[in-house]
Amino acid sequence: MAERFFERLALVGIGLIGSSIALAARRSGAVGTIAIATRTPTTLARAEELGLGDAYFADPAEAVKGADCVIVCTPVGACGLVAEAIAPALERGAVVSDVGSVKAAVIRAMAPHLPEHIHFVPGHPIAGTEHSGPDAGFAELFRNRWTILTPAETADPAAVERFAGFWRSFGAHVDTMSAEHHDLVLAITSHLPHLIAYNIVGTAADLESGIRSEVLKYSASGFRDFTRIAASDPTMWRDVFLNNREAVLEMLGRFNEDLSRLQRAIRYGDGETLYDLFSRTRAIRRSIIEIGQDTAAPDFGRPH
Amino acid sequence: MAERFFERLALVGIGLIGSSIALAARRSGAVGTIAIATRTPTTLARAEELGLGDAYFADPAEAVKGADCVIVCTPVGACGLVAEAIAPALERGAVVSDVGSVKAAVIRAMAPHLPEHIHFVPGHPIAGTEHSGPDAGFAELFRNRWTILTPAETADPAAVERFAGFWRSFGAHVDTMSAEHHDLVLAITSHLPHLIAYNIVGTAADLESGIRSEVLKYSASGFRDFTRIAASDPTMWRDVFLNNREAVLEMLGRFNEDLSRLQRAIRYGDGETLYDLFSRTRAIRRSIIEIGQDTAAPDFGRPH
Ligand SMILES: NC(=O)c1ccc[n+]([C@@H]2O[C@H](COP(=O)([O-])OP(=O)(O)OC[C@H]3O[C@@H](n4cnc5c(N)ncnc54)[C@H](OP(=O)(O)O)[C@@H]3O)[C@@H](O)[C@H]2O)c1
Ligand SMILES: NC(=O)c1ccc[n+]([C@@H]2O[C@H](COP(=O)([O-])OP(=O)(O)OC[C@H]3O[C@@H](n4cnc5c(N)ncnc54)[C@H](OP(=O)(O)O)[C@@H]3O)[C@@H](O)[C@H]2O)c1
Repeated sequence: MAERFFERLALVGIGLIGSSIALAARRSGAVGTIAIATRTPTTLARAEELGLGDAYFADPAEAVKGADCVIVCTPVGACGLVAEAIAPALERGAVVSDVGSVKAAVIRAMAPHLPEHIHFVPGHPIAGTEHSGPDAGFAELFRNRWTILTPAETADPAAVERFAGFWRSFGAHVDTMSAEHHDLVLAITSHLPHLIAYNIVGTAADLESGIRSEVLKYSASGFRDFTRIAASDPTMWRDVFLNNREAVLEMLGRFNEDLSRLQRAIRYGDGETLYDLFSRTRAIRRSIIEIGQDTAAPDFGRPH
Repeated sequence: MAERFFERLALVGIGLIGSSIALAARRSGAVGTIAIATRTPTTLARAEELGLGDAYFADPAEAVKGADCVIVCTPVGACGLVAEAIAPALERGAVVSDVGSVKAAVIRAMAPHLPEHIHFVPGHPIAGTEHSGPDAGFAELFRNRWTILTPAETADPAAVERFAGFWRSFGAHVDTMSAEHHDLVLAITSHLPHLIAYNIVGTAADLESGIRSEVLKYSASGFRDFTRIAASDPTMWRDVFLNNREAVLEMLGRFNEDLSRLQRAIRYGDGETLYDLFSRTRAIRRSIIEIGQDTAAPDFGRPH
């Protein structure tokens, strides 16, 4: 039988990640009931239409009453305000978490508001798509993907382990690390790739209008891959860059140095430097496929 | 009934693109017989095992004898040498083409060798995958994708139209433009995206080894998309950058200016600049999906 980790789960924010958690938790039987709160009435109504929860609240403080697990699923920039709003209503011993793509800044924003009598276990599921909102969720989103937890060193190991079990019931793998380390690793695996994708799509959008329509027609030659990532939610991503500045600037610095070297190689016709790099990078793709983090099918298995 | 455009097609080079043309031409009935030549004996033997053609030659000059259509499907850097080798054996009135991702430099390399009595119609199918070699080809590769032809202004319109019909028989759309314009548009839709993908994967590969294994584990957060493109053939891409230097450096200059602006916005916490860009780029993705050049399925429809 499936294990029940919590009696009542409260989700504050019910977009892609919140709705995927709701669907996954329902399917795995990891929780008894699900309470949902979100800011906008139409979003809440849509969540109810989709049957994502058992009870729906406009006020997040109402939603967390009686919940032994609370997960904040809003953009990173809203986490502090949500923590402030729910703090007085949190149950003793509840696990309180989030799913923000940045961890140190979220902890700085939330922790001061949270009472001593709860277990704060910040989290980040390394899974997503370019879509957002409650309709975008699906129960399989977290399967075979990692969820990173960044509890304080003083956190109760039993509470952390219980919360890890909850995530594992969705088919996720769980890693624990410091918030600072998380932010550095995600700066290179996620934040910089998004920045660069947004940037090149922006560069193309600014081209003379004659060329612009051709950019769309001929996008299958590489460009279209970048447009997927650059179609991600603007609020979410603005908040990520505002809240992980140091690590992103550090990785961007390295990227720029490396790009200058390539630029020079192109300018001076240095084929060897180009060939060397282009051969090294293939091995990384192979490793990612080997560890099951991407499909081996050509072109991501897109229909042809 | 399917239209036959050429009696005998000769392909010099039989990797991803050459083998896809062979399979597509066989299926559409666009040609009578197919002659194949390639440099390496094992590749030629593999092409024969796969039944890609009707006759197989180590010497490209032998392969083009009696062919009314010849397509050079080698990396860009080899096109000049191939043209020199086949020139004396080309049939009067044959259409001679290539599939190189760069056009002006290929024309400069090939044209001086080609006799007056053939029709030179350089081409570039805007379709591909990250795989290479004769096993990578499939007949559907060109369906619903554009093929760009860049004949000289003095080219015979009837020969160009016949060759365009040949490509259309694969389900491709055909555009005609100048080689210079092609090289500029492809610099932004294909060459710069590849350069940037290679670069960021290289930056990640150079990270301290502790972080490197984490980059693989957490790659589903954006990075893995770039590794697909950065797994493309190193020889092909070295040749592209060596042969489209000016246009690539021009687009790279624009990209760098835009990236500096984003870097500054992150450093100074300018959320508005970030949000503005991140909202604009969504529209480009939507347009690409609307014109049928990418799938609307989340995450390219990858299995979850
Ligand atoms: N998308 C991904 O790929 C991904 C992956 C891993 C982690 N994350 C993280 O997950 C979190 C949610 O992302 P998502 O993709 O689920 O976003 P989403 O689909 O856009 O949903 C965001 C939710 O938060 C609510 N919200 C937005 N602004 C708010 C505010 N100022 N105050 C209160 N609620 C607000 C929205 O509410 P209303 O509609 O009611 O306004 C909506 O329910 C973010 O922190 C993000 O960093 C995202
Ligand atoms: N891949 C794409 O996505 C794509 C898309 C559009 C256009 N293109 C263009 O298509 C052309 C071929 O690309 P591809 O992807 O088919 O490459 P590929 O799979 O690597 O195949 C290249 C073929 O060219 C031969 N070749 C390599 N170097 C050669 C040399 N120095 N002299 C003579 N033959 C040589 C190889 O022969 P051996 O195995 O016999 O050595 C092989 O048969 C390139 O010009 C590329 O720019 C590629």
